[in-house]
Amino acid sequence: MEIRHISGSARRGRFKTHDGIVETPAFMNVATCGAIKGALDADDLKTVGCQVMLCNTYHLHVRPGDELVKEMGGLHAFTGWDGPILTDSGGFQVFSLAGLRSIGEEGVRFASHVDGKRLFIGPEESMRIQANLGSTIAMAFDECVENPASFAYAEQSCARTTRWLHRCQTELTRLKEDGLARPGQMLFGINQGCTYDDLRVAHMKEIAGFGLDGYAIGGLAVGEPAEDMYRVIEAVEPYMPAGKPRYLMGVGTPVNILEAVYRGIDLFDCVMPARNARHGHVFTWQGRRNLLNQKYEKDPLPLDEECGCPTCQKHSRAYIRHLFKAGEMLAMRLCVLHNLYFYNHLMERIRAELENRSFEPFYYRYRETLDKRI
Amino acid sequence: MEIRHISGSARRGRFKTHDGIVETPAFMNVATCGAIKGALDADDLKTVGCQVMLCNTYHLHVRPGDELVKEMGGLHAFTGWDGPILTDSGGFQVFSLAGLRSIGEEGVRFASHVDGKRLFIGPEESMRIQANLGSTIAMAFDECVENPASFAYAEQSCARTTRWLHRCQTELTRLKEDGLARPGQMLFGINQGCTYDDLRVAHMKEIAGFGLDGYAIGGLAVGEPAEDMYRVIEAVEPYMPAGKPRYLMGVGTPVNILEAVYRGIDLFDCVMPARNARHGHVFTWQGRRNLLNQKYEKDPLPLDEECGCPTCQKHSRAYIRHLFKAGEMLAMRLCVLHNLYFYNHLMERIRAELENRSFEPFYYRYRETLDKRI
Repeated sequence: MEIRHISGSARRGRFKTHDGIVETPAFMNVATCGAIKGALDADDLKTVGCQVMLCNTYHLHVRPGDELVKEMGGLHAFTGWDGPILTDSGGFQVFSLAGLRSIGEEGVRFASHVDGKRLFIGPEESMRIQANLGSTIAMAFDECVENPASFAYAEQSCARTTRWLHRCQTELTRLKEDGLARPGQMLFGINQGCTYDDLRVAHMKEIAGFGLDGYAIGGLAVGEPAEDMYRVIEAVEPYMPAGKPRYLMGVGTPVNILEAVYRGIDLFDCVMPARNARHGHVFTWQGRRNLLNQKYEKDPLPLDEECGCPTCQKHSRAYIRHLFKAGEMLAMRLCVLHNLYFYNHLMERIRAELENRSFEPFYYRYRETLDKRI
Repeated sequence: MEIRHISGSARRGRFKTHDGIVETPAFMNVATCGAIKGALDADDLKTVGCQVMLCNTYHLHVRPGDELVKEMGGLHAFTGWDGPILTDSGGFQVFSLAGLRSIGEEGVRFASHVDGKRLFIGPEESMRIQANLGSTIAMAFDECVENPASFAYAEQSCARTTRWLHRCQTELTRLKEDGLARPGQMLFGINQGCTYDDLRVAHMKEIAGFGLDGYAIGGLAVGEPAEDMYRVIEAVEPYMPAGKPRYLMGVGTPVNILEAVYRGIDLFDCVMPARNARHGHVFTWQGRRNLLNQKYEKDPLPLDEECGCPTCQKHSRAYIRHLFKAGEMLAMRLCVLHNLYFYNHLMERIRAELENRSFEPFYYRYRETLDKRI
């Protein structure tokens, strides 16, 4: 990874993948089942300035099945998105969505949330599924510990996640040798350790030795105070290999992202912009807006007067509010287009500020603004 | 209206409106509450080749209210659609959707389907609402009789619809004189008479004398056999003014449209293409396809190999089927885009065949094909 500018811990970088270059800091847009919720397709992702599409291994494994996706030519051919794709490991969903799970050293047995079918995913299965999906970046299979967890459990779990990481690396190498995974498929490891700084650091030091293509911080933004998250990032960051992309999983609000970039993070993903949009909550450069608010009933202005997205070029708050009240799907699409555009362009702005050596004042100004309710 | 080519009773025509020219035969795309169901906006309507957007007076009157739409600059400014807009009279919805209605000579009292509020619409109210909406073409307020109805009731109802038409015409003239309606707003009258050919003809003769901007056949496609509908069109058509657009309301399947064009109709509207699309039923040049069918599970072909729509340029049957199974909104949008494109391009093809004097063989070929289940 090329680091082009530095401002404190913040990095303006760039890394190559088999499916194109990623300019960082970057926000990855979540297409859980191979589609962005809110009726956006691959062409819409280009329109909103997406660089990396993120798909969920667990969801695609249970439906339509990774074998089917492979038969259809992999996720790129299946979805029509030709840029980089990151697939998660399936771990988080197995621990949060699936029923009746039991965790052992081999992996996790669980029941599909779709049809209750008994399934098993361990490190090898996760790698095989992600190889079938043909993603650009595969994530290692980790144990996602419930929060709060005891120090003792968290410590054991970290050790297991490290053993699983080794098995992931071995299996992906084998799959590539056997021609069953794309030769260029990258593997990112995941740091765990709950909110115990010493565990986090020890685990990060361990996995840094694996020489992976990137490193993620997992198990944060799961209900703990934001200050704990920022503290953990600060503790772990010095031990994350400087020459590799650093990914904070499942984060977050615009201010969370700003704070994490400030602390040295390069990559993000979150369902928040699309989910909030579907409930009429939009992000703007002045703060957050709840479009269902009565005061927008006759408001002819766009969602955000500073925004260049297709929705803001064309439609008024009053029209979109009406569409929500009338239960029209178009309301959701217009707001998802806007929120994803906002997130992707927030990252673009952050990159430009880093290049112009003006990130610090930008950071201080917008950490006070972006989460305000207006 | 300029009639450019004739083939039997079928007409290739063109008429001017305040918001642009309409090439006929044409299909009007239904945006009930000011938006096409399936998350399409005004720009998408351009993409699918829409000429005329149709909005529902009743729906917009109860929500967000025609006064609000007027304050926002009318339907064109509110929705972003700059082409011709036809508004229905509200009559059909008052009779089919609203609760607790009572019909009198003045008009109809009813309860809003949204909040139960007691409302009243008569000919004058319908004209005032449509003037507020600022549509290009207003429809006269008619009584929609339930099918089947006795001859006696249908006869009385026709007489009332004629009296109401007179009141509509008077009121719209007054609204224009008072600067409360757009100067160019057109008024179409509606022929009624159930499936009684003699009533239909008598009523058509009567309203033809009003010198309106266009004439519609209402009260068909409400459950009667298609053969009855075709017979009524054949009976009425000779009495529809040849120099005015002829509109068959709420019709229909591709074959219904082909049969009606063959019998001299110029304009159509129907919720079918968008509604079917949302259930995975797509129209193609080979017939109708149910995308949920197991046989499409791994089908890499587009919905219709002969189609130039954005969906068919980009996505496979397998992908869209998966999106339906996963409950992704994108499935509906992709199929609505396709079906509306198909309808609008069916009309374009019909116009081309009429121009090339090849409509008759086209009609015989496709009346056997388009409704086939494949």
